[in-house]
Parts: sequence; C-alpha cells; structure tokens
Amino acid sequence: MGKTLAEKIFEAHVTDKPFGDTWVLKLDRVFCHEITTPIAINDLVSKKMDKVFDPGKIKAVIDHVTPAKDSKTAEQGKILRDWARRHKIKDFFDIGRNGVCHAIFPEKGFVRPGFTVIMGDSHTCTHGAFGAFAAGVGTTDLEVGILKGVCAFRKPETFKVNLTGKLKKGVYAKDIILAVIGRIGVAGATDKVMEFRGPAAEALTMEGRLTICNMAVEAGATSGVCMPDMVTVDYLWPFVGPDGDKTYAAKEAALADFSKWRSDDDAVYAGSVDIDCSSLDPLATVDYKPDQIRTIRQLKGTKIDQVYIGSCTNGRIEDLREAAAIVRGKKIADTVRGIVSPATTEVYNQALREGLVQIFMDAGFCVTNATCGACLGMSNGVLAEGEVCASTTNRNFFGRMGKGGMVHLMSPASAAAAAIAGVITVL
Amino acid sequence: MGKTLAEKIFEAHVTDKPFGDTWVLKLDRVFCHEITTPIAINDLVSKKMDKVFDPGKIKAVIDHVTPAKDSKTAEQGKILRDWARRHKIKDFFDIGRNGVCHAIFPEKGFVRPGFTVIMGDSHTCTHGAFGAFAAGVGTTDLEVGILKGVCAFRKPETFKVNLTGKLKKGVYAKDIILAVIGRIGVAGATDKVMEFRGPAAEALTMEGRLTICNMAVEAGATSGVCMPDMVTVDYLWPFVGPDGDKTYAAKEAALADFSKWRSDDDAVYAGSVDIDCSSLDPLATVDYKPDQIRTIRQLKGTKIDQVYIGSCTNGRIEDLREAAAIVRGKKIADTVRGIVSPATTEVYNQALREGLVQIFMDAGFCVTNATCGACLGMSNGVLAEGEVCASTTNRNFFGRMGKGGMVHLMSPASAAAAAIAGVITVL
Repeated sequence: MGKTLAEKIFEAHVTDKPFGDTWVLKLDRVFCHEITTPIAINDLVSKKMDKVFDPGKIKAVIDHVTPAKDSKTAEQGKILRDWARRHKIKDFFDIGRNGVCHAIFPEKGFVRPGFTVIMGDSHTCTHGAFGAFAAGVGTTDLEVGILKGVCAFRKPETFKVNLTGKLKKGVYAKDIILAVIGRIGVAGATDKVMEFRGPAAEALTMEGRLTICNMAVEAGATSGVCMPDMVTVDYLWPFVGPDGDKTYAAKEAALADFSKWRSDDDAVYAGSVDIDCSSLDPLATVDYKPDQIRTIRQLKGTKIDQVYIGSCTNGRIEDLREAAAIVRGKKIADTVRGIVSPATTEVYNQALREGLVQIFMDAGFCVTNATCGACLGMSNGVLAEGEVCASTTNRNFFGRMGKGGMVHLMSPASAAAAAIAGVITVL
Repeated sequence: MGKTLAEKIFEAHVTDKPFGDTWVLKLDRVFCHEITTPIAINDLVSKKMDKVFDPGKIKAVIDHVTPAKDSKTAEQGKILRDWARRHKIKDFFDIGRNGVCHAIFPEKGFVRPGFTVIMGDSHTCTHGAFGAFAAGVGTTDLEVGILKGVCAFRKPETFKVNLTGKLKKGVYAKDIILAVIGRIGVAGATDKVMEFRGPAAEALTMEGRLTICNMAVEAGATSGVCMPDMVTVDYLWPFVGPDGDKTYAAKEAALADFSKWRSDDDAVYAGSVDIDCSSLDPLATVDYKPDQIRTIRQLKGTKIDQVYIGSCTNGRIEDLREAAAIVRGKKIADTVRGIVSPATTEVYNQALREGLVQIFMDAGFCVTNATCGACLGMSNGVLAEGEVCASTTNRNFFGRMGKGGMVHLMSPASAAAAAIAGVITVL
C-alpha cells in the first residue's frame, strides 16, 4: 500500500509513539513571531528552562505589529529580540529586514521538501507548499519544540484536492482556494492534511502554491501540501545549489531527492474533491466564514470603504504585480482608502525596483512597510464599525479586521479593481 | 512706537476686546487632525451645533495613527472623515495622500504671512515660519473656532531670538533651536511669541524655519514666527503666483505685501537672546526635558536601540536628504532598529524619485508610510522599558515614545550617524 507525503514525513521523523496514533516527531524548523513566542519564552524562563534545542533550526521574526504600536507590542518585540540574541539565533529578522513570517521564511529558503515545521501561528500550513508538513501549534507545543526539537501529533489522514483545467484570465490561485473551501466547508478537512494534486496544482508557481496552502487551515486542515517538483527545485535552487549550501550539484539530483516525498500513486486518502479550475470565475467571501463564497459578479456594486493588498496569503511580488497591472495609471475612488503592505522587506525592495511602489502611490494607495498589518486587526488598517474592506487576506471572521467591520476576501486583482471602482466590480 | 509681527496680526484680526488684554481674533485657518478634533465634533453634534464657519478655511488630516492601529483610532478617523464629507471640507487628507499636519499644510500652501491659525495640537506654532500667528488650542477653543471662525487670546508679548553667524558644516536648524531652548529653558518664552530674527534666521530655508518654529512651544511660546521675505515668497509662489490663485502677478508684489507683516525696527520686545550660530556644535537632549542640552561630542558612545527620522520637526525632504547623505552605502548597526517616516506622502514621493527610500532601505532602515509615527508613542516605533532612541522629533518627555524609554533629540544628520555607529557619535 502506497503512502502519502504526510505519512512519509511522519515515518521519517518519528522518535516515539507514546499512545494510539499519537506520534512524536523530530522537528526541522521551529518558527517564531513576537505575538505567541514571548509567552513561551516567559514560561520557559520562569521554569528555569531557558534553552533552545538548536539555534540554527529556530527562525524568528517580528511581523504582526511592526514597528511596535504601543508599550505592549514594544515589550513583546524586546522579549523575542533579547531571546534571539541570548541564544545566538542568527536568523532573527527585526524591523528594516523583516516580513510576514509565512512569506519571509520561504523567501529565505528555510523550508525544504520533507521537513517538519511548527509555529505558534494558525497559517503555518503555508509552508507545506514545499512538500513539508507544517502545522500551527499552541504555546505548550511551541515550548517543547523550542526546548527539545520535537512535537507530538496525531498521525493525520490526508484529504486530496484534485485540481484540473486551466485558469481563465483574471482567475488566480486565491480563487482556487476560495472555491475549494466553498465546496468542502470550513470543517471539510478538519485534522487532515490537505494535499493539492493534479495538473492545475503542478501549473502553479511557488507563490500560488503558498497562497493555496496558506488557506488550508480555513477548511480545518493541519497542513496544506503540494508535491515537490521542478517548480520547487527552481525556487529553492539559490539555497540548495552551488550558490547556496551546495547540497546538490545539479537540479536533477535535487528533483530526484525531493521527489521521494511525493505521495505514491496508490496512497490512501480519507476524502477528496475535484475542482475543474477552467470553470472558475473570480470569487470572494461574504458574511463571516471563509466558506461563504460568491462570484465577484454576484457581489458587483457592493460598496467598500477600504482595500487591503498584503498578508501571508497575497502580499508577494507576484500579487503586487497583478494588482499594479490593474491600478497603473488610474486613481482609486475618493471614497476608498487603499493600503498595500508588501509581505516582506525584499518584496518591498523588488516592488521599488520594478516601479510598483510608485504605481500604487500614484494611484493613491498608502504603501506601508512590510507587516501583517490590517489582516488581523492589530495594526495598519483596522476598520471602524460598519466599514467594509475588500481584502487579499485569509480570514473574514467577525471582528477580524476591527470590531463591526466586514471583510470580503478576494484575489489581488479583484481587490485592485474594487479600489478603482469604489465597489466590488468585474474586471 | 513700532509693532511686532504678532501685534500687527492681532490688530488686523481683532473682532472684540471683551476684557483686559483678551482679544477675540478672526481666524484664517482652523486645522484639524483625528486625535483632538473628533472630541470637538462629538461635542458639537451632541449640542446640535454641528456646523462649520467656513469649509474652505478648515483643513483636516489623519496623521497621528495612520493607517488606524485599533478600533479606537479607526473610529476617530471615521468621525473626522464623515464630518469632512458632511460639511464639504474639500481639503481633507486621508491615508494615501496624508502627512503630518504641520508638514502637509505648509506643503499645500495653506499658510500665508499675516494669517491666524489654530489647531488642537501643541506644535501648531510651526506655521509661524510663514510670518503667521499659529497657536495650539484646547477642545473648547477648537469648537468655537470650527463653529464661529474666531478664537480668544491674551495679546501676547514677543520674545526676540537674534540669530547671527554662519552654521558650521554638520550643524543644522535643529541644533539652533536646541541651543535656544537650552539657553532660555522650557519656560523661557512662556505665553510669548518667539520671534526669530537676524541674518542666521534669514539664511534658513523654509524647511529650517519650520523646524525652529516647531519647537518654540518647547520653551513655552504660543507661536514661533519668522519674518516673511523672499524665501517665503519663493516657497509660496506656486500657490499665490500665476500658477496658483493668481493673487500676485510678480514676486516683488508678493514680497511687498508680505513685508508689511514684518516687525518694525522699533518694535518693543519682552525679552531677547542672542545666539551666535557659528559657535554651535551638533547638539542633543538628555534626561526628560528639551532644555537639557549637551553637545553630541559629550554624549559620544551613548548606546542606542532605535533611531527615528521623521516628524513635524524633521521629516521633510531636506531632512531626509541630510540623513541619506550619511547612510548612503553604509549599514545601520545590528543592534539598532532604524525607522524613517517621511512627514508627508509628497515627501515620500520625492524621496522615492531621488532614490532616498532605496538608500535608507539598503542601509537597513524600515521606511514607513507618512505618519506622526513614533514621535508621540502612539504608533510605529514605541520603545520598550529601558530602551534608548536617537530621534529627530521635538519632545523627550518621560514616556513620550513609550513607557520607560529615553529619547535623545537631535538633527537628522546626527541621528543617521548614530544609526550607523550604534551609539551617539560625532560625524
């Protein structure tokens, strides 16, 4: 009987099977940000257990509120910063070189096929785009991970999402994942690994794969995963090739090595859904759950107060290019506040070099430094009561972007079009 | 007996002298931002007096926390925004086109020699750089101003600051005003207008004049003022000349008209101080009052955690150019967080065009959107307990930039040098 990618990773990393289907896995990466990790750090310090299992495998970033907006967030940043210095965690990204965790860690080549990754953040599933098992965990698991480099999981079943067909113009990875969640519901893949397969998955860039894996958790999945292939190799080549850590002398060797993690043809799945991507139209959420999906056409004319382009879902350079192509030479509506938050400092730099920052500013967007920003209502774009936002982020929960606010999740292209029109509109 | 500029403005604007030396002045400008004006708006609404005296003379901006960082600031922005729309206040600057009030209103040409200006903000004194009387007021005065276009003041005496000599290289307008405050103390010009005279004042650019007038309040002054001259005319020419409102066909006519506001040679002053600018070295504050001044040389080696370049004092294009010239091609110290906040969207755009944003980012600075930002500990750069910041802002009060933080006020050049060195350092 064949195995899924997740099963292969579990078997390669297991150090203990304490009971039932609970397995203890060796961790390749523990990622940290300034909102959840300081709680773990303070607890470890109070227990006189202020150690880290391997400073080289821990990566940390200040991303949620950056620069700090008040004494509380300043203190959170300081705790993480002091801890990183104390334990010689080299890969700590402070303001001026930081970015949204799920964008900067991939960008730095920190995730490889077959890796196990944890973080105290619900969208850790993003990193499965590389063919890794990456899961968001609570504070206790994070503490154990930091200290011992292990984490206990129930061995998950895998849910297959079979993506076929070619996307129409104006339809993007974001629309695919919205369609998937709309089809299977917010509990459709609960406690399972959501595996994206099929020609339309293979056709996605790494950026697109990160987008769809990012929202796997919105259907309840532990991790999203894509199969490693030459797209994965190409993306990681600067890090694993001759200019990187020299693990591989040739791309073919990397591909062969990465491919061993791919799910077997006869692997067993706990469920599946087929999506014909050629049939998809641009989509958006309504209400307060990400499975409440409508077509942009159905929502045409919906008045908006703010447009937010950014986040770990859609704040990458590809996303900014798509949005900029739409706003170039145009002005956003007088009644709309537009915010662009490049996901990382490097994305910002690239957008600067390509003239995208200027395009957004000429159109009337506020371009912020790299930050999680408005996505979770913590900084840089909180909505007031009754306000409506067209947003490229991943959650439309009640109050997510500010008490009493409404968030319509959509692609960067659809959000950019809404900014110009002042209402949700068909491109 | 001759008259001072302030006396001339008071006499030209008085509508009533209700008692003693209290005069009621007609207002040319009422400036508004989202922190103090919503309190006035809500009060006027609750009294069923929701009117404005003249929407063309009211200018409003969201600048303190932009984009909004939480529900409270989102609500403050919404109150100001809705009010501006309701009363057809055309000059309302929302995110994407906003900036620090005391930088954007001058930039838009809203202040002219001889004007009376109020705002619910302590650094309103800045606008006296144009030869106007500009004062920060409380909520009640702001309400009356919005409603009736008048404000009552005790007719102020004038304190003369006579600036002579030529600044040495590396010494700037910021050092002049720090020297003045250091000399006369934080109560040295209380309730007086601080008038900057002499060849070194005339030699300053408008940006430099805005910097020195900005900090007049730190010595207790109601308004700072500079004498209108050809520098003033040149700055305002795009607004008052043939490409502007066509008030003047030729610069000479504008100069003649503006000059009538200049203090007479035989005007009477309530006090004065002479500063030989050629003797000044780069300066900075210590402790928690802006009159505690040391030379940068005396503070050499003082460890810093953050550098902040921005604010209504020193966030203008000239300031960014000075700072960029120092950081170009260098990296800020590993132990320092660097933040550059261009004072306005237009300053940001200009910095973008001149390559300054790239220079700052290459050096490792976080470049934020235009905002008051870290200056007053409300957003974008709050210090944690025990942290130290080299800052181009105007106040070093205890807790100003975050509870338990220490702020050393200095010029953009000195702050930039500190960012590179990781300690306060001599250029």
